[in-house]
Amino acid sequence: MPVLKNIGVLSSGTTSGPQGQVYSISDAALVWRDETIAWIGAERDLPEQFASEKSFDAKGALVVPGLIDCHTHLAFGGWRCDEFVQRCLGRSYSDIAMAGGGILSTVKATRALSKSELLERCVGFLKEISTFGVTTLEAKSGYGLDVASEIKILEVYRELQKRPEIQLMPTLLAAHAIPTEFKSKRGKYIALIVDELLPRVAAERLAVFCDVFVDAVAFSNDEARIILQAANKVGLRAKLHVDQLADTGGASLAAELGAISADHLEFISDMGIQALRQKGVVAVSLPLASLFTRQSPLDARRLLEQGVPVAVATDFNPGSAPSFNLPLAMMLACTMNRMSPAEVLNGATIVAARALGLHADIGSIEVGKRADLALLSASSVDQWLYNFGSNACRATFKNGSLVYGAL
Amino acid sequence: MPVLKNIGVLSSGTTSGPQGQVYSISDAALVWRDETIAWIGAERDLPEQFASEKSFDAKGALVVPGLIDCHTHLAFGGWRCDEFVQRCLGRSYSDIAMAGGGILSTVKATRALSKSELLERCVGFLKEISTFGVTTLEAKSGYGLDVASEIKILEVYRELQKRPEIQLMPTLLAAHAIPTEFKSKRGKYIALIVDELLPRVAAERLAVFCDVFVDAVAFSNDEARIILQAANKVGLRAKLHVDQLADTGGASLAAELGAISADHLEFISDMGIQALRQKGVVAVSLPLASLFTRQSPLDARRLLEQGVPVAVATDFNPGSAPSFNLPLAMMLACTMNRMSPAEVLNGATIVAARALGLHADIGSIEVGKRADLALLSASSVDQWLYNFGSNACRATFKNGSLVYGAL
Repeated sequence: MPVLKNIGVLSSGTTSGPQGQVYSISDAALVWRDETIAWIGAERDLPEQFASEKSFDAKGALVVPGLIDCHTHLAFGGWRCDEFVQRCLGRSYSDIAMAGGGILSTVKATRALSKSELLERCVGFLKEISTFGVTTLEAKSGYGLDVASEIKILEVYRELQKRPEIQLMPTLLAAHAIPTEFKSKRGKYIALIVDELLPRVAAERLAVFCDVFVDAVAFSNDEARIILQAANKVGLRAKLHVDQLADTGGASLAAELGAISADHLEFISDMGIQALRQKGVVAVSLPLASLFTRQSPLDARRLLEQGVPVAVATDFNPGSAPSFNLPLAMMLACTMNRMSPAEVLNGATIVAARALGLHADIGSIEVGKRADLALLSASSVDQWLYNFGSNACRATFKNGSLVYGAL
Repeated sequence: MPVLKNIGVLSSGTTSGPQGQVYSISDAALVWRDETIAWIGAERDLPEQFASEKSFDAKGALVVPGLIDCHTHLAFGGWRCDEFVQRCLGRSYSDIAMAGGGILSTVKATRALSKSELLERCVGFLKEISTFGVTTLEAKSGYGLDVASEIKILEVYRELQKRPEIQLMPTLLAAHAIPTEFKSKRGKYIALIVDELLPRVAAERLAVFCDVFVDAVAFSNDEARIILQAANKVGLRAKLHVDQLADTGGASLAAELGAISADHLEFISDMGIQALRQKGVVAVSLPLASLFTRQSPLDARRLLEQGVPVAVATDFNPGSAPSFNLPLAMMLACTMNRMSPAEVLNGATIVAARALGLHADIGSIEVGKRADLALLSASSVDQWLYNFGSNACRATFKNGSLVYGAL
């Protein structure tokens, strides 16, 4: 039963109440048994029984729950920095997509990679992601867009689930774009998802969630309804990319379909906010995508004040958010989404855990939860996200094991 | 004469022409003698005379000129993360300043520190700044606001000039705010700057530049004119904080006063742009300040298209830009200021060197210039600023000496 000493602890203590609520303990200690937190409190109150256990001096580190990135597109081929340069100079994301760039160019590059090539890339990403204190990651397919390629991506994710540093939650996002070969027969592609992909993915337990990109350049509300109702029948809960480039009533759709989260939401309406609140759908803010596509960011205060929980994630993908730096997304949620640092910390831990249905197990530092911890060189969460310099994460523990850094 | 092998080189090759112009050499080598670059070219063309010199295998690193942060407020006491939290929730920068926060609260904390305490803090910052590939830094006073405290800050900078990792260019910014004790006698404070501070700073060669914050909450155009004309007489060239919160004709003022740079410029007018161009004043974009104060960012394309060079800097300070992460500011210049990555690289190297009058000596990789180099894990400048994850800087050379990282 290892003991972490000389730490400050900061975590959500509850899943009810305002999102900015955290508890903190200074001069604290934390004990875990195997993968699970066994005791937390002031170091001077450490029970006798732990006194002789192996202990680590964390030299005043601030310990927060392992970070949870609840929205990424981890597996893809190639990069799209040529499009980045075009966007810097003023070309719009939609314009590039309509000219044959965007998602479809990554689909081509992803199909061209073998499973082991794709796996190797992802392992490289995971190792780096872990250095930021991230211990759980949602990962979407969606750059395959045919049965074999979508399955290839999800099989890569199955392999990654065996790795020690990060817990990976896979999502089927076959409805990311209409593939070129189905351009004039959208219905056939939707039928392929519903009749072939979904049953197979469910049978082989290759995904936990099913996601749809709802937008004028992607899928309509009606198409999303067909896909996500079918997903629901085979046990895959809905997630949705909605209201990113315009208000298309996507938040209300997410509520109607019982989605676990509605993501993006830059253009969410007041009605959409009410719908999320009533159905307990978690909103997911992706400020890196707003920044990289030069869009108006989500005003998260509107949601928080109405009682809608807001998670914060990277949206890591080669087009609109080419960064897996979750602390950067968190800083941007403060500066762009009008969230306080404490709200953002909860947004990337306990609220993100809710967006993945894992809040009973992870997302806060509580006895009985997993020992997923990020050790930071920071005096407070405010200071961490405010004085944004080098990576402040000194060490990452996943399931009680040190997976990055040193003590 | 050390030789760096197995590198790609990317640098501005000229100070004329469009700002995005760079030259690149792949499979390159670079030789330096003492502090100065002696040879650059394709490795296969390495002259015989260098063949037996000590060489380093840089394993494919991309070598760019050491980065130059041409606008920082390095020396200050305390932090202001309480104000950060207030701003996240929606309170404005001006509102906080008028309620007694802002610059004046940092002045109190800075006056309270001894010279050695202030020096120690700055040394800590410099070490971290150097890990980002930064080799030159402008540093302003301005949190003292009385003779003794302004001199204390500039003497700290004089001490820092002896350090190997970074070349520091000091600026007197006594006209950063009207100190509390002069609130109802502004003229007396300006007289103090002109009659006491400037002659002493000039006599002791404690600063190279003199800067004024021109804004409704700080100094007027007329006050700036008095101070900067006096500075000019004692040999301190003008820099200006202008047009940050509103267009006050600050760019034209900078041109009129023969300033070496005009910084911020979020609200610059077309007339201001013409004035900068005609007088060859360098514009300095500070996107971190726009982000942290939730302001409309500078549209740098307007300036670049009119032929005004745009430098990119951090504005590191405890209020509006609490980060010394220059690559982050550079990424933001792409995503917020509509600059291409190549324009931004030049903006943080050769153009920043011009904003400090050092372009004959540093800012590009050319034979005869200083061997100030940043070695990056990146395939191109586009990829570096686009795939913004961990710190990509592997090693930093200042004056030919390795000051960060390993080879």
